[in-house]
Amino acid sequence: MITLTTDFGLKGPYVGEMKVAMLRVNPVAVLVDVTHSVTRHSIIEGSFVMEQVVKYSPKGTVHVGVIDPGVGTSRRAIIIEGEQFLVVPDNGLATLPMKHIKPRAVYEIDFEKIKRFTGWRISSTFHGRDIFGPAGALLDAGHSPEELGREIPLESLIRLEVEPKKEGEIWKLKVIYIDDFGNVILNLEDYGRPKAVELIDFGLTIPYLETYGLVKPGELLALPGSHDYLEIAVNQGSGAERLGLKVGDEVRVRLVQ
Amino acid sequence: MITLTTDFGLKGPYVGEMKVAMLRVNPVAVLVDVTHSVTRHSIIEGSFVMEQVVKYSPKGTVHVGVIDPGVGTSRRAIIIEGEQFLVVPDNGLATLPMKHIKPRAVYEIDFEKIKRFTGWRISSTFHGRDIFGPAGALLDAGHSPEELGREIPLESLIRLEVEPKKEGEIWKLKVIYIDDFGNVILNLEDYGRPKAVELIDFGLTIPYLETYGLVKPGELLALPGSHDYLEIAVNQGSGAERLGLKVGDEVRVRLVQ
Amino acid sequence: MITLTTDFGLKGPYVGEMKVAMLRVNPVAVLVDVTHSVTRHSIIEGSFVMEQVVKYSPKGTVHVGVIDPGVGTSRRAIIIEGEQFLVVPDNGLATLPMKHIKPRAVYEIDFEKIKRFTGWRISSTFHGRDIFGPAGALLDAGHSPEELGREIPLESLIRLEVEPKKEGEIWKLKVIYIDDFGNVILNLEDYGRPKAVELIDFGLTIPYLETYGLVKPGELLALPGSHDYLEIAVNQGSGAERLGLKVGDEVRVRLVQ
Repeated sequence: MITLTTDFGLKGPYVGEMKVAMLRVNPVAVLVDVTHSVTRHSIIEGSFVMEQVVKYSPKGTVHVGVIDPGVGTSRRAIIIEGEQFLVVPDNGLATLPMKHIKPRAVYEIDFEKIKRFTGWRISSTFHGRDIFGPAGALLDAGHSPEELGREIPLESLIRLEVEPKKEGEIWKLKVIYIDDFGNVILNLEDYGRPKAVELIDFGLTIPYLETYGLVKPGELLALPGSHDYLEIAVNQGSGAERLGLKVGDEVRVRLVQ
Repeated sequence: MITLTTDFGLKGPYVGEMKVAMLRVNPVAVLVDVTHSVTRHSIIEGSFVMEQVVKYSPKGTVHVGVIDPGVGTSRRAIIIEGEQFLVVPDNGLATLPMKHIKPRAVYEIDFEKIKRFTGWRISSTFHGRDIFGPAGALLDAGHSPEELGREIPLESLIRLEVEPKKEGEIWKLKVIYIDDFGNVILNLEDYGRPKAVELIDFGLTIPYLETYGLVKPGELLALPGSHDYLEIAVNQGSGAERLGLKVGDEVRVRLVQ
Repeated sequence: MITLTTDFGLKGPYVGEMKVAMLRVNPVAVLVDVTHSVTRHSIIEGSFVMEQVVKYSPKGTVHVGVIDPGVGTSRRAIIIEGEQFLVVPDNGLATLPMKHIKPRAVYEIDFEKIKRFTGWRISSTFHGRDIFGPAGALLDAGHSPEELGREIPLESLIRLEVEPKKEGEIWKLKVIYIDDFGNVILNLEDYGRPKAVELIDFGLTIPYLETYGLVKPGELLALPGSHDYLEIAVNQGSGAERLGLKVGDEVRVRLVQ
């Protein structure tokens, strides 16, 4: 199985080109579209999406992620090998999914090696079709990462700054995702089960509950959500809109036990 | 084959999570995305969409539908077994597709039984990934509904009010769907082939024809459409916009023979 | 493998109906969604999208394209057989993809022959589900075009006017596609590698470079793009918006060597 997460949008030929290119080098691949509507160039959002999918995927799954503002520059294309595979640009996209695959080795993809399999010219602007897609398809077909690149140190990878910070009782968190419904996801996991959450900068303390329907429509709440991260929401409304938050914003919170 | 109809939207990880979770319990499942863009929480729209797909699906197809405003409350998760399977929340979503599958038995899904197959925690907010998706995947893999839940009476299901009503010559109909093009679909089937349709509340009588192109661009018509329901449209325009209609609205019509 | 390119939109039942109908006549078909978001009725945009996908597809691939403003009229439904198959309405949609499949023969689809395989009524408004989808599925299953229609002359096909024109040094080009990012694609291929491109009607001469990042954010450039056609873009911005261009517009350019 190969999953696909990109910011290509659904209107043009891009997604189709990538998929047929993959099936051309590996006709029996099972392709799973995760989303092609990641906010353009939002590496953090793509990283969050890939993480959630990795958490529920079986061992051996190949995840191809293409949020790639640096295409055509000297940024590296990489394969991370662990219980699952990540095939991504080296721009931080792997930061969150990597936590769940027990990485064993990292490889820089060698474009000439890919071209030996595909046979077509590698463009400067569309590595999803020319590099990442075919590399994922070849891994899924049983080719080893060594056939596609050369090993590089795990420590050399570019990583996003997404570790939560704490000063005294105050968590300094970051919005890592806002879903279609306006639910705000913060970079805090394994925080126990507080009674309430104080949003310092908004002068608000909101209840921490199991699900949306436990407050009245239009009211704020905090909840565990379905992604293990602390989530801020409005029942039948948009938490992001209510609080004026967007991906990347800092939010200071205190957990009330 | 398993079809998927949800209101998750295409931007986030939700669709991907559900699909990989399904392939994890049933790696050879063929997943068919119907749509993930049902209007949020619109059970009637989801029911219409599922009905159309059921009508053209082969026997044995499993249809997973997740339009689920009551997730996390005590609403039941159900399997309807007939010539095809429906796996949905018990909130009326099954009302229209059920008409075409000759239901034999209904089961309430037992979350603990599902968990025995999947092994992961069942969230309070995402039963598409944790309950409905895996249940559908397990049915497709050949597990019996009895392994996944316990039988309940067919009469106990929640149903939408979508039967057309008639007073004298006047049909009191309901808008059950408006498509991307603004075509308005009303809950009237098997009405013969009238010459024209009088829209009582608009003081208009419009021709009933076989296809859009038989009136001038911009003109209203009624037609059989491709879904067997009575449809109101504007050639190269939007019937819904012209008449100010939305899903759920009542429309009174008289068929002119 | 069967690819699908339509303007059905992603919200309704249409895409799902077409796909289950195809799997009903050919349960082992591998369906690849290219896009269902071609601008409604834009034959030129659909033709461009199909061309790009054809260029990267393996031999024998079946491409079903349904941008079909003439559905229900007497326009023909056709199969073009070559190294790959195109299954489309005869309205010009095949113009660009046809260049890459070495056409051997063209067939007009016989609706009665299709119905013998599917068994269901052919609607006047949804030939994607009733004609094109099943025809593609049957070809993929190994049925010959002769079983589905009768041969017609290749010269009888309707074609789009997309050949670039030249007057002296001035190319009179046409916008054949604008992607989600606002990049403008013009109908000029095999034009060498100029140093710059003069946009006659805008009084501008812009550099011709390999990729977006080689000009400052917000600046115009011309580039080869990933589709072999001449492309006009703004780095991290929209070329279409900057120049006020839409699909079908004429653009006069001079290549500066």
